[in-house]
Amino acid sequence: MASRINHLANTLANNNASNVIIDGKEYNTATEPKLLFQQERSKASFNVRDLTYYLDGGKEATEKMEKIMESIERDPLFNNDNFYDLNKEQLREQTMARVAALNNHIDGENETILTSRFALTGLADPNTITRCGVHFGLFVSSIRGSGTPEQLQYWFSKGAGRLKKFFGCFAMTELGHGSNVAGLETTATWDEATDEFIINTPNLGATKWWIGGAAHTATHSVCFARLIVRGKDYGVKSFVVPLRNLSDFTLKPGIAIGDIGKKMGRDGIDNGWIQYTNVRIPRQFMLMKYAKVDANGVVTEPPLAQLAYGALIGGRVSMAVDSYHFSKRFITIATRYAAARRQFGFKKGEPETRLLDYPYHQRRLMPRLAFVFAMNAASAELTEMHSAATSKLASADTSNPAELQSAIADIKELFSVSAGVKAFTTWATSEIIDQSRQACGGHGYSGYSGFGQGYNDWAVQCTWEGDNNVLTLSTGRSLIQSALAAKKGKKVGAAVDYITRAEQLKSVKLNGRDLTNPKVIVEAWEAAAASALSSATEQFEEQLKINGNNAEIAFETLSQQRFETARIHTRLYLIRSFFNRINNSQITPAGIKPILTEVAILFSLWSMELDSGLFLQSGYLSPEDTKRVTKLVDEYNSKVRSQAIPLTDAFNLSDYFINSALGNYDGDVYKHYFEKVTLRNINKFSKPPYFETVTKPYLYREDEEEVDRTQLE
Amino acid sequence: MASRINHLANTLANNNASNVIIDGKEYNTATEPKLLFQQERSKASFNVRDLTYYLDGGKEATEKMEKIMESIERDPLFNNDNFYDLNKEQLREQTMARVAALNNHIDGENETILTSRFALTGLADPNTITRCGVHFGLFVSSIRGSGTPEQLQYWFSKGAGRLKKFFGCFAMTELGHGSNVAGLETTATWDEATDEFIINTPNLGATKWWIGGAAHTATHSVCFARLIVRGKDYGVKSFVVPLRNLSDFTLKPGIAIGDIGKKMGRDGIDNGWIQYTNVRIPRQFMLMKYAKVDANGVVTEPPLAQLAYGALIGGRVSMAVDSYHFSKRFITIATRYAAARRQFGFKKGEPETRLLDYPYHQRRLMPRLAFVFAMNAASAELTEMHSAATSKLASADTSNPAELQSAIADIKELFSVSAGVKAFTTWATSEIIDQSRQACGGHGYSGYSGFGQGYNDWAVQCTWEGDNNVLTLSTGRSLIQSALAAKKGKKVGAAVDYITRAEQLKSVKLNGRDLTNPKVIVEAWEAAAASALSSATEQFEEQLKINGNNAEIAFETLSQQRFETARIHTRLYLIRSFFNRINNSQITPAGIKPILTEVAILFSLWSMELDSGLFLQSGYLSPEDTKRVTKLVDEYNSKVRSQAIPLTDAFNLSDYFINSALGNYDGDVYKHYFEKVTLRNINKFSKPPYFETVTKPYLYREDEEEVDRTQLE
Repeated sequence: MASRINHLANTLANNNASNVIIDGKEYNTATEPKLLFQQERSKASFNVRDLTYYLDGGKEATEKMEKIMESIERDPLFNNDNFYDLNKEQLREQTMARVAALNNHIDGENETILTSRFALTGLADPNTITRCGVHFGLFVSSIRGSGTPEQLQYWFSKGAGRLKKFFGCFAMTELGHGSNVAGLETTATWDEATDEFIINTPNLGATKWWIGGAAHTATHSVCFARLIVRGKDYGVKSFVVPLRNLSDFTLKPGIAIGDIGKKMGRDGIDNGWIQYTNVRIPRQFMLMKYAKVDANGVVTEPPLAQLAYGALIGGRVSMAVDSYHFSKRFITIATRYAAARRQFGFKKGEPETRLLDYPYHQRRLMPRLAFVFAMNAASAELTEMHSAATSKLASADTSNPAELQSAIADIKELFSVSAGVKAFTTWATSEIIDQSRQACGGHGYSGYSGFGQGYNDWAVQCTWEGDNNVLTLSTGRSLIQSALAAKKGKKVGAAVDYITRAEQLKSVKLNGRDLTNPKVIVEAWEAAAASALSSATEQFEEQLKINGNNAEIAFETLSQQRFETARIHTRLYLIRSFFNRINNSQITPAGIKPILTEVAILFSLWSMELDSGLFLQSGYLSPEDTKRVTKLVDEYNSKVRSQAIPLTDAFNLSDYFINSALGNYDGDVYKHYFEKVTLRNINKFSKPPYFETVTKPYLYREDEEEVDRTQLE
Repeated sequence: MASRINHLANTLANNNASNVIIDGKEYNTATEPKLLFQQERSKASFNVRDLTYYLDGGKEATEKMEKIMESIERDPLFNNDNFYDLNKEQLREQTMARVAALNNHIDGENETILTSRFALTGLADPNTITRCGVHFGLFVSSIRGSGTPEQLQYWFSKGAGRLKKFFGCFAMTELGHGSNVAGLETTATWDEATDEFIINTPNLGATKWWIGGAAHTATHSVCFARLIVRGKDYGVKSFVVPLRNLSDFTLKPGIAIGDIGKKMGRDGIDNGWIQYTNVRIPRQFMLMKYAKVDANGVVTEPPLAQLAYGALIGGRVSMAVDSYHFSKRFITIATRYAAARRQFGFKKGEPETRLLDYPYHQRRLMPRLAFVFAMNAASAELTEMHSAATSKLASADTSNPAELQSAIADIKELFSVSAGVKAFTTWATSEIIDQSRQACGGHGYSGYSGFGQGYNDWAVQCTWEGDNNVLTLSTGRSLIQSALAAKKGKKVGAAVDYITRAEQLKSVKLNGRDLTNPKVIVEAWEAAAASALSSATEQFEEQLKINGNNAEIAFETLSQQRFETARIHTRLYLIRSFFNRINNSQITPAGIKPILTEVAILFSLWSMELDSGLFLQSGYLSPEDTKRVTKLVDEYNSKVRSQAIPLTDAFNLSDYFINSALGNYDGDVYKHYFEKVTLRNINKFSKPPYFETVTKPYLYREDEEEVDRTQLE
């Protein structure tokens, strides 16, 4: 292949528009891009390596990540050259092999490294990481979170810690119930005679559904079922229910399992459905850290039921981190392609213009590149908030009500913030993948660009572990509750502190101040968030008056307002996090502060432009100001564009992790793309496999004989 | 399967939240939905059949469509039960077989019926219709549009009309050039000695790319190449170039063809790449209706070059129609699912609430349902505009300059309007598919819901036949040109007539008038469009002054403004078209006028809410008015929701065309979904095919022996 490309590359077209002369040498579409990339990199205004350290959380973190990335990339089982050509069956098999390979690292690495390894493996292959995740992230975490120490030890002794004759799955969701866990219908009825639970699927809607690992792999399930003791329903608890016989992997009696089959993406995961038909398990298989049933059928309920769901927050935080990782990959592809691709003349008599030099193309990509940096900052702040809050709770003296209450308040704040950040970063990532694909024009539709598969694999993040709409509405509800608390003079969390300054913020206007001053920007967004939240809270109080203090109905009626206030609150959280980190000299060395500030300003002003109605409505901006915002967005797009290639380089993804024919580091896009397509689709005879059976019988057909009616008369 | 479902269905859960008592009978998740659907249908406030006639363009049209739909649905080759499980290779084969079956209808049906058959076949299978379309819609249309009558007759005599030993492809796009057709690099050099053209691919970037039909099927190509005669480049013209030997389907000398391979969607189409290496064709294979080369190498250029591209407009119009067809399918699925699905309690002590009864869920679906109706109206108006303009041009007396100019003005108007409508209806359809999927929660991610494949198959519509961004910017350019013409007192097209009233519209405010009055709504949108266009035009004139009258640079600088003005203009076009048709009693009988008016008001006010910044900026709405808009949107959502099932029924799609486990007519969603998943994924042994080779060696492994260092000492 290589020689053919070179031969073609050296032949120039009789078409001046497509040829470019640089330093007296003539180049064409195929030969030029590499040179352009060198030029782009030579113009970097900052040290790229320093920016990588900033993004990863320091030099040491970067070096650790690079070691892990290298070990993944070198592993032949993780070769991804054919990733986009695998069908469901092939993906399933490859994924299981990779799960095994990944787990071989488990004993040898400490927890921090493992977290990085899981995140980075997920970037290379979302199937593998999810299929591992259902065991470690869901099954084992459930045992750890909801089981007693003895139960944990027991299941580890059976192999749960090392996937030896053991693979767990997480049987929560049912066909009829997803978001509303409390409404699950599977039952776990205590049988006094045998001191066992009888696990049963009472109707079709109660079939466990979407259960990752169930179809092909799991030996055990954590089953969420309604605890029924002596006819009383104690609500949903969790139970370990064995699924398969370990001797021959056959299904245990009473267990019915099927394959969920084709999905939009992540076909490497063997999602299944499970029906339990009066399956008996020892009473001790119920996870009893919180709720307990003793041998006499006495049920003890936990004092703090909500703590049982605490494990879910960790998932949300890691999804915000994943949003950063995934979106950086796709924005890099689109930015590199735009730097290489020329189309149409911008100025007459000159070579065609590179996409990245069109003001409109800059608008499509640069604000989204800035968004990726904002997600990096927000997910880092959220991670810190998460570890602070969880260790505070873990070390809280439970005999000290004030201390416990303070710890719980922090967890509640974390719950609200993480819900909004999870929702809006996963949505933003979907949008960035899709816009990046469209920015690559027709070539974005090629399977080898990575966008199609990337979008399909990503999309589920907006739905699982809390549907984004449900999460956003719950954040909106917490915000209104915080605002009501603030009115009564109670303390509110740091993320929503602006509400205590709502009155003052209400009267603030831009008044000719500099919109590129971070303080002005943050204030503007605080004013917008305060205005939205105050308005929603006022309407909530009105609704309460109208319907006789039924808060549920008031919240439902104001769902649009809840959504909007959560949306704006979360945007503010991203903007504040970004500037916080820039202003922290421990995190941001002086050398990269100017470029990061430009990126943060672009993100904030572009967000402001999108939401201009909000700022006009509150009177913060005048109609003239909004025109100025648009001009500034153009200006900062152009600034960020000049550093676009170095900025994406700082993400530090090798060509293996980029895995796109359009996004290689060297910019030699046409060569890589052509090579990929030809190497993956060799067909020397240029005839389809169905030529003899389908094509030829049709194209080379004889005409059907016409009916000659006269012969019939 | 059926008996199992029935047995399960009759067992009720010990879980009151999930059971519902209707007329004294108890139902659960699995048994209830069918009953709910009957109730929904009994509440229809209008005659569904009349609405179907309205949507299809009359009773006769509906009946024709039903006949065609029935014939597709009954054809065993078009059985789509396994559609979502087919891999690329299987899809390719099936698609070719269907192309043959579809073409067997060609002789027997008249052109109107054929257009319907193609559109409806495309709804059932986008692969087949595109693979047919490259021959009939692109190859044959090129011969017809750019060839002489003799050339048309010649190629038809070779089989082009009936796909006998003939299959054409359309070799326009190159690896390095897509949107900018004028920059294509393939050359067609006239050889005086032999009176032939030499077709050549000069470099890698000039490789023909994405060519549908090239990889597996095409015998001939229409190749777009630069005409070079005696060293002079006359720009891009089209040439018929044979690709394969008819005797054995091998490639002709000098032809290199490869498979483009995996795509985001439409894998049934055999897109390929083509390189021509000095391929010789007779001079007469150049299509010479417009540009001509005679035997002496004398080149004649056409008087009206733009007419050669006129065929592209037809494609745009049909993509607006397709947008309606595709989006109606997906909004129906999501609406039906929302009517069946319960989740969470809205009111305490009552059954869980149906998704469609949540105000927020109504906001997610009802405005998009209204959008689908707006697309129906706009695509119908555009179709009429298209036939009027093309027949006016065809019948224009070319010796009468005024008549010709008037006809060309209409075509230009059509060009501008169709570009915007194509862009914003195809984008809206993508968005509607995606939002509809998310509205089905986790189940939307199932392959059998149809959303994933639907999105992937659809997405290319936003890119091909004119990238949506490029098209929108070109509409923006035409609008500014129209505004400048209007300033000089010249006549402008009907779609942009509001610009002539810009001064008057500028001072109009809502001023307490009724926002549900269609006249007020249309005026509001005209004011918004006029304001955006006036502002863009003023900025354009300023830019001209700054940069010395370089219109190209001025247009580039104002690309954001061009985009915005085209976006608002197109939204106005949709709104005006919708009300136009409602007010035309020939089209809209009195019985369905009230419901259509409600739908149109919802669409218009929801659009206004989304663009509140625009209306605040112009002063048309006050901040208080925008709150009123939100309240009205809620109100109209609730009105439209009450008719949601009958409204989607009016789209008249059978379960075959819906092809989603979540969207069947009877509403029995859990039963259909479970049946589909189980029937498509039978695995009695519940072990994966790779159990012995991958799963068992890992899960049942022996531990690796630890190194005992002492043995080495």
